[in-house]
Amino acid sequence: MAKQNIPNDRSDAGKRNSRKRYYTYRKVNKKNSLRSPEPKESVRVAFLGGMNEIGKNMTVYEYKDDMFIVDCGIAFPGDELPGVDLVIPDFTYIEKNADKMRGLIITHGHEDHIGGIAYLLKKVNVPIYATKLTIGLIKGKLKEHNILESAKLVEIKPHDNITLGAFNIELIHVNHSIPDAVGLAVRCPAGILIHTGDFKIDTTPVDGDMIDLTRFAEYGKKGVLALFQDSTNAERPGYTMSEKTVGESFANLFRKAGRRRIVVATFASNIHRVQQIIDVAQQLKRKVAVVGRSLENLVQVGEELGYLNVPENILINIDNIKNFEDENLVIITTGSQGEPMSALTKMAFGEHRKVIASPNDYVIISATPIPGNEKMVGNVVNELMKRGIEVIYEKMYEVHVSGHACQEELKLMMGIVKPRFFIPVHGEQKHLQKHALLAQSMGFSKDNIYVGTIGDHIEISEDGIKYIDTVPSGEIYVDGIGVGDVGNIVLNDRKHLSQDGLIIVVATINTSTGEIESGPDIVSRGFVYVRESEELMNSARELACGVIKETYDSRYHDWNSVKSKLRDEISHLMYEKTKRSPMILPILMEI
Amino acid sequence: MAKQNIPNDRSDAGKRNSRKRYYTYRKVNKKNSLRSPEPKESVRVAFLGGMNEIGKNMTVYEYKDDMFIVDCGIAFPGDELPGVDLVIPDFTYIEKNADKMRGLIITHGHEDHIGGIAYLLKKVNVPIYATKLTIGLIKGKLKEHNILESAKLVEIKPHDNITLGAFNIELIHVNHSIPDAVGLAVRCPAGILIHTGDFKIDTTPVDGDMIDLTRFAEYGKKGVLALFQDSTNAERPGYTMSEKTVGESFANLFRKAGRRRIVVATFASNIHRVQQIIDVAQQLKRKVAVVGRSLENLVQVGEELGYLNVPENILINIDNIKNFEDENLVIITTGSQGEPMSALTKMAFGEHRKVIASPNDYVIISATPIPGNEKMVGNVVNELMKRGIEVIYEKMYEVHVSGHACQEELKLMMGIVKPRFFIPVHGEQKHLQKHALLAQSMGFSKDNIYVGTIGDHIEISEDGIKYIDTVPSGEIYVDGIGVGDVGNIVLNDRKHLSQDGLIIVVATINTSTGEIESGPDIVSRGFVYVRESEELMNSARELACGVIKETYDSRYHDWNSVKSKLRDEISHLMYEKTKRSPMILPILMEI
Repeated sequence: MAKQNIPNDRSDAGKRNSRKRYYTYRKVNKKNSLRSPEPKESVRVAFLGGMNEIGKNMTVYEYKDDMFIVDCGIAFPGDELPGVDLVIPDFTYIEKNADKMRGLIITHGHEDHIGGIAYLLKKVNVPIYATKLTIGLIKGKLKEHNILESAKLVEIKPHDNITLGAFNIELIHVNHSIPDAVGLAVRCPAGILIHTGDFKIDTTPVDGDMIDLTRFAEYGKKGVLALFQDSTNAERPGYTMSEKTVGESFANLFRKAGRRRIVVATFASNIHRVQQIIDVAQQLKRKVAVVGRSLENLVQVGEELGYLNVPENILINIDNIKNFEDENLVIITTGSQGEPMSALTKMAFGEHRKVIASPNDYVIISATPIPGNEKMVGNVVNELMKRGIEVIYEKMYEVHVSGHACQEELKLMMGIVKPRFFIPVHGEQKHLQKHALLAQSMGFSKDNIYVGTIGDHIEISEDGIKYIDTVPSGEIYVDGIGVGDVGNIVLNDRKHLSQDGLIIVVATINTSTGEIESGPDIVSRGFVYVRESEELMNSARELACGVIKETYDSRYHDWNSVKSKLRDEISHLMYEKTKRSPMILPILMEI
Repeated sequence: MAKQNIPNDRSDAGKRNSRKRYYTYRKVNKKNSLRSPEPKESVRVAFLGGMNEIGKNMTVYEYKDDMFIVDCGIAFPGDELPGVDLVIPDFTYIEKNADKMRGLIITHGHEDHIGGIAYLLKKVNVPIYATKLTIGLIKGKLKEHNILESAKLVEIKPHDNITLGAFNIELIHVNHSIPDAVGLAVRCPAGILIHTGDFKIDTTPVDGDMIDLTRFAEYGKKGVLALFQDSTNAERPGYTMSEKTVGESFANLFRKAGRRRIVVATFASNIHRVQQIIDVAQQLKRKVAVVGRSLENLVQVGEELGYLNVPENILINIDNIKNFEDENLVIITTGSQGEPMSALTKMAFGEHRKVIASPNDYVIISATPIPGNEKMVGNVVNELMKRGIEVIYEKMYEVHVSGHACQEELKLMMGIVKPRFFIPVHGEQKHLQKHALLAQSMGFSKDNIYVGTIGDHIEISEDGIKYIDTVPSGEIYVDGIGVGDVGNIVLNDRKHLSQDGLIIVVATINTSTGEIESGPDIVSRGFVYVRESEELMNSARELACGVIKETYDSRYHDWNSVKSKLRDEISHLMYEKTKRSPMILPILMEI
């Protein structure tokens, strides 16, 4: 631990006595007279997403009757949400306070920060502030949802100041895996809050502009009330490598490819990565083709808005790759996470219509698997290798770097911003807690660190951080065009169906005579291969017949007890015979 | 590349000319007169599992009319096999050649080597040869399947020689993450084959016996025709650490735990790991309780057979932990992979009946996630941390080492065994290929390395390795007590059901009049929350009614065309209204 990094040069003694430190801190600030004269003013913050979870980042800042939102992202559903396309935050709190919402500021153009905007705007049409590229990407989304016309988009740039009610917000340039990312300095009568957004410190960034540490440091000098910092890589020691190192790896590997065709898979949003691929391709006089919808879209937007510097005649349409020799080609593709429907996966399984993989390909997977995707990526590597293709996918080749700050960078930021309070955001519990420990190692007392969870509504003043209440928050599932109509009942049914399938018992009953007029028939799906299980199906039919005859009383028409008995008995039979528990669905038709 | 590691001291010149190397090799062997006089004799090998896949290891060695099997494991199903409990090899080839099968040798007691035995014995009751602990674990499995009585189990130990027809097999002690693991030296008129089985080189193993490198080297000196080597860690550079390092980490961490209760999660089969936990607990005067069925079973078998050295009075029943202070307890638990039904997961989610997690717990996850389990493990860590528990799970704490050899160990084994042919086994394509490259870096020519796939039936003689044909092989799914009755149709149905659920359209039709007597009713599961979708269900009902009336012709009773039309039309409606594709199941009852 470096002493000089202790916020406001607190002495070692202070570590043992946080009251004393607090006092010292106040004195320093009073002397410098850079603080608001009203130390008891407070600002509120509500975490609607990205806190104690990865993805769907969304934070609300509140001062009296003025509120504004930072980011509005989505999360990608895991296996525990079968059939769900994407997850958005719960907007109830925004809707309730619609009259106080002065704006939505977006820090950068990744899905976990912009993906939910279209859904939010359909509820509350709040003005959106973002940098040029981010606006470009948001526009694409709003167009898809047919709400671009009515949206209020305001393009801003680093150093700009936005006034939203009592808030004045300055945008500060940061490095990240997409250009035009910003952090925020939020000023209000309660003090200054720094919201880093996703960031890393890249001293040699591809676009030339290093993160504006000077500005963060200036705020640190003025006195910062609280720092909200990206926790994604809080578990990782050291520094995140510069994006430039990837370019150097490409230069080496592209040469090794020799006369083979080069295929590079990368995240669709990483313009810097695409730029570096194009640069090296240019040096080696190879043409570049792009495949995968999201990547094609990015290249188009990136080029249009000037974020991608594409030499003339280097880009060719994927349909034209047949006109070039392998040795003169680089294909940039989606699928770096082994996504089943992506271009690279289709190539690997021989299902891509336009790109036929051959042993004369040289594939570079320029990404590391996001937790949960390791197996899918492994499968794609295996399939490519079975085709005799050399695949570069290991860490040792340095074909990928993270877009998030590691421990040393996080500490550096804390050290220059020197906030009174520290709030780790954007991460699961394990990331938040590691980040909190990191802050403790910098000299922050436990009391000055707030490890929160989604829905937390807190109040920050110089006196401390106070939990107020929990606001509505959570996961809204989007499936097809349905928003929120898939809930736990539906999901549990899907999970049950996926485990052992279902058995339908259907019969038509004459309600006046109580006779079974047709059936009972047994229909199954996802349970057993029916042709080989005739005997079992016959016993089920007989059993159902008996149950209906026994239980059905034509005087009371108590269908529920018949159905419930059918479910129990058939379920029991099936478990006994197969040790499986399919869903049992009795359907009784009346005539 | 180290020259001295080149098999049979082949010269550098040989690398450029594999024919010449072959010649040199033969001459050396003739001079030493250690080889069989019939160089053209050949031995055959069939790979029934573990080749180009992880798990369900099973290999058949064949010389004329004598065959024997090595290992008979299972694989664990991934998300792509919903509801499947486990996967066993296809035994068709064994059944076809039952009269030639002289025995089954098991290298060690892990599930991917013994899990399929019970299923095999039900088809072909071949005698089983294995070491003491392995036999102990196999017995447990056979008891569960009620076939222990009829099984022929032969206990063997390292240095033993087994004669199976024309084969003579010597067992060679190896290090692995379970005691009593062996490799095989298979001798037959065609030459000597070395089958390493799962192994690592541990110079300071917990049980004191280092892998018998001397014996492998002696065979190397005699001249080995082919080496079949474990590829699991072929992607990893360097050496696998000794199991002892984990013990040292435990000693440090247990001290750090202070007065907290210690909970260690580990693989249920790792007796050495359990021994080390017990040893450190003993030093710190803590009692040890074991929780989780598979772990309890292991401790019992391990103690009974003398593989676990348990000081008196140290083990207590999990029901009695309430009688001890936290500071006097260590709990060893299953769940190191975050398995949903495991003891650790239940503790994390507050669902374990006997162990209530509290902030006074100190949890060590002594394992690394198997690819595909990263997210589950992360979830358990998050939940434990939310309860205020400190969790040690990162690599940096060295609380886990692999049981498999890394690149330097693999090369060392190749270097002392000096085989003529090299066959990487036990691994996915990417592991096999990395292993092959490793062999090339040792001086093996590409022609002398065979990268195969499951089902390959090959012939090996001094002339080379020849692919003969493909034998029946693959994946047989076990679901409940059903073996092989869940196939692709059933699985595809399960997957379809899990994505968008299903809609049942049911109607009773009078076959003489063609009238709909009852229904059509629309029943859905896993599709939408029905109470909020009445309108949609009503339109479906109306549509179905129209389709039946229009399509059903009471003269021909062409049910199929009615059903097919119903499927198309309802499916179309649903996609249009929801952008989802539930399974549509029309059921027409006749009266």
